[in-house]
Amino acid sequence: MARHRIIIDTDPGQDDAVAILLALSSPDEIEVLGITAVAGNVPLALTARNARMICELAGRRDVKVYAGCDRPLGRELVTAEHVHGKSGLDGPDLPEPTMPLQDQHAVDFIIDTLRAEPPGTVTLCPLGPLTNIAMAFEKAPDIMTRVREVVLMGGAYFEVGNITPAAEFNIYVDPQAARIVFKSGAPLVVMPLDVTHKALVTAPRNEAFRALGTPVGIAVAQMTEFFERYDKEKYGSAGAPLHDPCVTAYLLRPDLFTGRQINVEIETGSELTMGMTVADWWRVTDRPANALFMGGIDAPDFFALLTERLARL
Amino acid sequence: MARHRIIIDTDPGQDDAVAILLALSSPDEIEVLGITAVAGNVPLALTARNARMICELAGRRDVKVYAGCDRPLGRELVTAEHVHGKSGLDGPDLPEPTMPLQDQHAVDFIIDTLRAEPPGTVTLCPLGPLTNIAMAFEKAPDIMTRVREVVLMGGAYFEVGNITPAAEFNIYVDPQAARIVFKSGAPLVVMPLDVTHKALVTAPRNEAFRALGTPVGIAVAQMTEFFERYDKEKYGSAGAPLHDPCVTAYLLRPDLFTGRQINVEIETGSELTMGMTVADWWRVTDRPANALFMGGIDAPDFFALLTERLARL
Amino acid sequence: MARHRIIIDTDPGQDDAVAILLALSSPDEIEVLGITAVAGNVPLALTARNARMICELAGRRDVKVYAGCDRPLGRELVTAEHVHGKSGLDGPDLPEPTMPLQDQHAVDFIIDTLRAEPPGTVTLCPLGPLTNIAMAFEKAPDIMTRVREVVLMGGAYFEVGNITPAAEFNIYVDPQAARIVFKSGAPLVVMPLDVTHKALVTAPRNEAFRALGTPVGIAVAQMTEFFERYDKEKYGSAGAPLHDPCVTAYLLRPDLFTGRQINVEIETGSELTMGMTVADWWRVTDRPANALFMGGIDAPDFFALLTERLARL
Amino acid sequence: MARHRIIIDTDPGQDDAVAILLALSSPDEIEVLGITAVAGNVPLALTARNARMICELAGRRDVKVYAGCDRPLGRELVTAEHVHGKSGLDGPDLPEPTMPLQDQHAVDFIIDTLRAEPPGTVTLCPLGPLTNIAMAFEKAPDIMTRVREVVLMGGAYFEVGNITPAAEFNIYVDPQAARIVFKSGAPLVVMPLDVTHKALVTAPRNEAFRALGTPVGIAVAQMTEFFERYDKEKYGSAGAPLHDPCVTAYLLRPDLFTGRQINVEIETGSELTMGMTVADWWRVTDRPANALFMGGIDAPDFFALLTERLARL
Repeated sequence: MARHRIIIDTDPGQDDAVAILLALSSPDEIEVLGITAVAGNVPLALTARNARMICELAGRRDVKVYAGCDRPLGRELVTAEHVHGKSGLDGPDLPEPTMPLQDQHAVDFIIDTLRAEPPGTVTLCPLGPLTNIAMAFEKAPDIMTRVREVVLMGGAYFEVGNITPAAEFNIYVDPQAARIVFKSGAPLVVMPLDVTHKALVTAPRNEAFRALGTPVGIAVAQMTEFFERYDKEKYGSAGAPLHDPCVTAYLLRPDLFTGRQINVEIETGSELTMGMTVADWWRVTDRPANALFMGGIDAPDFFALLTERLARL
Repeated sequence: MARHRIIIDTDPGQDDAVAILLALSSPDEIEVLGITAVAGNVPLALTARNARMICELAGRRDVKVYAGCDRPLGRELVTAEHVHGKSGLDGPDLPEPTMPLQDQHAVDFIIDTLRAEPPGTVTLCPLGPLTNIAMAFEKAPDIMTRVREVVLMGGAYFEVGNITPAAEFNIYVDPQAARIVFKSGAPLVVMPLDVTHKALVTAPRNEAFRALGTPVGIAVAQMTEFFERYDKEKYGSAGAPLHDPCVTAYLLRPDLFTGRQINVEIETGSELTMGMTVADWWRVTDRPANALFMGGIDAPDFFALLTERLARL
Repeated sequence: MARHRIIIDTDPGQDDAVAILLALSSPDEIEVLGITAVAGNVPLALTARNARMICELAGRRDVKVYAGCDRPLGRELVTAEHVHGKSGLDGPDLPEPTMPLQDQHAVDFIIDTLRAEPPGTVTLCPLGPLTNIAMAFEKAPDIMTRVREVVLMGGAYFEVGNITPAAEFNIYVDPQAARIVFKSGAPLVVMPLDVTHKALVTAPRNEAFRALGTPVGIAVAQMTEFFERYDKEKYGSAGAPLHDPCVTAYLLRPDLFTGRQINVEIETGSELTMGMTVADWWRVTDRPANALFMGGIDAPDFFALLTERLARL
Repeated sequence: MARHRIIIDTDPGQDDAVAILLALSSPDEIEVLGITAVAGNVPLALTARNARMICELAGRRDVKVYAGCDRPLGRELVTAEHVHGKSGLDGPDLPEPTMPLQDQHAVDFIIDTLRAEPPGTVTLCPLGPLTNIAMAFEKAPDIMTRVREVVLMGGAYFEVGNITPAAEFNIYVDPQAARIVFKSGAPLVVMPLDVTHKALVTAPRNEAFRALGTPVGIAVAQMTEFFERYDKEKYGSAGAPLHDPCVTAYLLRPDLFTGRQINVEIETGSELTMGMTVADWWRVTDRPANALFMGGIDAPDFFALLTERLARL
């Protein structure tokens, strides 16, 4: 049995795609029980489509994909086509998926899976807004103690924000959902911008993807090329940050990441700082720790791992 | 077919009980498609029990009762045993219910019913925190346009608050859920404290319940007697306000109530005023109307109706 | 020596004018140590002018008038020409004042007076936003314990708001100043909309002013006539509420008013409810009392007093 | 005439002391028109004392020192004895000052100076909470356009916070004052933690102070030694950050600093993020720029300048 049995909750997004491909490339370590789509980078209809396109690109039409919530809790949906393009997966020219979307609602799939599997064996890997996860926790609170770990991409501390000056996109889109998840008591591992902004696809790294010569390698190179236009222009950085693959890489190689077990609160009360992940990195409060908040990554080894695994697909 | 086909979402609560009894007493006008329990006045296990006790008191073991959410969205549950007693139904000595709770989650029952019935034919009658309703709207946004009307007890304007100086209990317990419902676009009819504090069970009115001589009449008299201790002491009022029966009475006799079609926003950003229903009664803003917010009630006719109908059970 | 030695802090405004006239008409009971103008109903230049026009109308060119702050603490000034007219004193045709404005800043006059007079002998009577008072308390905190009482017009509880659905104008314009004053520890008497909306200038009451036949009586009749257009249209009320004269009437006849010694907090954290006076009228919190918050007025006797006193000018 | 004519507003504080010494050491470039004390690191009585002790240490008994506000606008004073020691100047053994405190209130000194001097010639250098500056702007708004520049130490963006996870001490202590200053329209230069955490007094740098062999050099060495205990322990840094001297160094050598002209908003609405300086470093909003927000410092040259100048005293 694989060391990690996971549900990927996602709003692809090029970097979500790479995170999914990394998971699917590593069946010995990671069993993907299902992929649940949520509205985020682009609307739900597109994220549910994109998730299936990625599975098909990986030759894994057997993976079950579920559609979840199409809007955050009590706020208008904010999307990020300015980063990801109109389709959310702009860059490569991938065919429309033909594998079906499952009938069940993503929230119920999450609940049923956590109830069906032995406690402490299923890991949730949210790569987008936390709407589906929060809805599952709210509808079936018993599952919160059955989760092995929630390893998520979201938030920021020293990198502060990307969609607003104070907030990272995933948390900003649904701060109430984030609040529910961060208060759930489930073990949390957080990959914030502090980590992901250090995982930059430089030209040589992208060349390494392309040099794989496989459809997957070429598509990944094309996706990150599209994706990086935004960050290069905005941050003047050397390449696109590969946010979401940090989540699946952590399952394979936790030693690539460093962080602190600290308290993280979600700002939900003020528009100016809405969705900020207020991380008590310096432990200046006495609020109890509720998350392993990452700060460092071994970027060269991360990219070596990624390239090596993508080569398997 | 009855004029109104409804789902009662409730956290009984003595006044919830009377609201349910009023609905069940009027099968020609009201068909109760199901009763969904939510945490509020007391925890979910008790509200799910109490709802069934009331059905059995009414001799209606056939009514389907569903359990829903046991906590609000992102906040700790606040309960009101100081008003309703430890069981939520303190007062009469009713037997434990023997009719079963349905297996399905209340949220799914609401969704399935709204999808199964013709659009615009099902009315939601929330008598407690709006958690279940908000969860259903979030999980299945398509149902929001299928709702005929949401007729709810909650909020306050000139009466301002009861659980805090600025907020009424039902909205305060789950302000995020209220925000979702008030922004849903579904037609809303709101029975706030402004109305319900005018529906006081004075001694003669309670005597009229008791004089019915039926188990229902006697139980209602005992419940309101218990319930009124709190309000008499706190407000020095002449009797207990019968909050929730205003909702079911509105279905039978909308002419008993007066109100205004106005904008109502829910405060979710500040603890001091958390859960306030900011009702633009005087239309001093240009925010669009989203609710028929009631202010007046013909109390004598309301109690006459109630007594007459309870006599039928 | 007069029983009350007061500083009137004001933004006239027709009702401010009547409050000032009432004070000036009662020299046996009230000595007006000075009048300080603040921005509010209209900008500071106009309120400083209007205050002097009123003194001259009363034949009291000896009263010292000071200009204070022209804007609230950290917010844009909001004015109320829609109620008071462009000049703030629309209605009568009063001559431009010729008496001079004092050189000293209002804030310093308040500080110097409270330091010069024996502790506990000077009452502050704010009739507008609390900017000047808060600035004096902040600049010279020693005066907070030297104040006999702050008797102010502002806020609302059951009447909730007039400028927004949740806030009364004076407090809304400068909520931070209100917060400073309400937390100051100085004894507070608050005349909220709950009181002032019961002090309506009906036609007979206005006729009584006019029937005095004096310049003062006629001007007051003309001012309230202008002023009432707004409230009659908005509230459908029988006449204009005479907000500010409740403050000076309280000095003369405290027995005309009823209220409760309770906690009052000022909302400063949310735009939706900004400036709300959250009054714990039902004592549902354990926050300590900080204000005598009025709720009732003997309106007939109030108007009788007012008419009788205005006749003296 | 000196190139810069300044008022230093300060709550010494060891690093405030060094900032003052640097200014006093450079009379050719900087004329200190006065020093105004404010409550912050320690209570006002101590900051007013400490400011004079520093002047006497520099042999400048002629500098006029004024006491200002002893508390922030509408909040309780928070102090930082855990950083600065009980006196605020722990470390060296300096004699009690004998030079007098001026009678005038600091706020009035600021106002009078800005009105007396030609427009655009006086620079304000706030090193503590912005209470005095905000009070002066509020009491005399005409001076806001007469200020040449406000060069202040406060806030943080990528360094986020020190007193809370989201806020730097100076801004946190009086967020309302900060809001007033940041909205004033006066030209602002901000030295946030992003800069000052790069100005670390390493052992060799401190040794250079001590090696001056002068009373000033030795006292500065002792002060930074005391001060650094806190930061070394908390951040594991190589030495104490010299926050406030960045302000006076900027007057002498603006080329030592790099930054961006951007929008900076102050969070005043939520306790969790209270006092955060939300700096739009990446220009993701369309809010207009209101501050030159610094991010970089040439630390070696900064310390070289500092040592060279302190040697002159």
